Amino acid sequence: MNTLDNIRFVLVGTTHPGNIGAAARAMKTMGLSNLHLVSPLHYPNAEATARASGADDVLAKAVVHDDLPSAIAGCQQVFGMSARLRHLPVPVVDPQQAVQQIQKYQDDTQVAILFGREHSGLSNDELDRCQHLINIPANVEYSSLNLAAAVQVFAYELKMRFNPTITFGRIGEAREPISASDLEHLYTHFEQSLMAIGFLDPNNPKNLMRRLRRLFNRADLDRNELQILHGILRAAENGKGDSQ
Amino acid sequence: MNTLDNIRFVLVGTTHPGNIGAAARAMKTMGLSNLHLVSPLHYPNAEATARASGADDVLAKAVVHDDLPSAIAGCQQVFGMSARLRHLPVPVVDPQQAVQQIQKYQDDTQVAILFGREHSGLSNDELDRCQHLINIPANVEYSSLNLAAAVQVFAYELKMRFNPTITFGRIGEAREPISASDLEHLYTHFEQSLMAIGFLDPNNPKNLMRRLRRLFNRADLDRNELQILHGILRAAENGKGDSQ
Repeated sequence: MNTLDNIRFVLVGTTHPGNIGAAARAMKTMGLSNLHLVSPLHYPNAEATARASGADDVLAKAVVHDDLPSAIAGCQQVFGMSARLRHLPVPVVDPQQAVQQIQKYQDDTQVAILFGREHSGLSNDELDRCQHLINIPANVEYSSLNLAAAVQVFAYELKMRFNPTITFGRIGEAREPISASDLEHLYTHFEQSLMAIGFLDPNNPKNLMRRLRRLFNRADLDRNELQILHGILRAAENGKGDSQ
Repeated sequence: MNTLDNIRFVLVGTTHPGNIGAAARAMKTMGLSNLHLVSPLHYPNAEATARASGADDVLAKAVVHDDLPSAIAGCQQVFGMSARLRHLPVPVVDPQQAVQQIQKYQDDTQVAILFGREHSGLSNDELDRCQHLINIPANVEYSSLNLAAAVQVFAYELKMRFNPTITFGRIGEAREPISASDLEHLYTHFEQSLMAIGFLDPNNPKNLMRRLRRLFNRADLDRNELQILHGILRAAENGKGDSQ
């Protein structure tokens, strides 16, 4: 990717509208303008406008969504900012590593960066939608960056590392990217199939679906691989000799 | 220099006390605690305390000075943050270059980083006290970072270069690694199972196994995930309700 235009910042469940304005300002200082808001509290709000300062244009075109899937629809790569350690192992990168990764994507890849609630961050369900987690290295005894400060740090790293004169891209065969909703569809199919073949007990699901999400979120599937996995699941449901 | 303890942040002529609190918070998230204030307006102030959030200890020990010379007394190296181009030839570096420079100093070198007023920055007289200027690369059409945002960005760069604390890679529970022969065993199992359920035609295998290898080679499986995949394959072979 060689432009910041295909990167959206998604603020999830923001409770203080002032932080939305400050985030808009932080984004604009670094040349970013795609702001999406999921169920913000008390918004629109004069405090948001005041804190946006000269970035009211970014605020004015911010898109408000009722839920996260709508905010990341059409995105092929979803990153979540996370301040806390999690129980399940997920690839975690620092902002610089995240930007280096983003630079390797194809030009038309749509990327979402999720920022959680001020006090509680992103929920586990929301983190399950992320293929990558970003952690800003911080004081272990006080790691609570203000929301707009985290937005500023990541926007700064994007600005610092993006060099529009260099063409990045994948080598090898062309891979057709998939979207976040394609992945959700895959997980739904997995769940149904694994119940059908008796591997997943709906009364005792344990962490199975979450573990599969972590695995395939990490795997950066392309469309061909997605179709192979759907095909295998269909064949497994249908049983021996009854498929394809 | 190998510690952040000899670095002080000096806020000069800050007009909004809330920004002083937010700056204290930004510093503390990155492990910095030496805050000096030159002629702050309306300070101390409840707004500063509120915005400091859990960083009130940094605020409590902040030193207030009547003038800049007092605030930088004893410092060997003085850096000034500057958003604007200046007439006089002074070395200008970006935050990363500034931190690399600071790391080269002897351990007992005292370093001051000056941050100017919200609207007018540092005066020419104040800039004359700086041996180095730091410019945060920003949108040329809108370069006005909030004061606390600039503090956060520079504190972040210091933290990133001095002592990043996150363990790069994965966080969370320990992942037991697998070997190349474990992977080969998985691919053999895949091949047998996919033939058993009729998804892989041994007379016309195409590139299926190669594609699955690429996918799972890339996915960096751990032992738990490996066992899940073997379990799914066994369940698929056995068919509905006959497994686990």
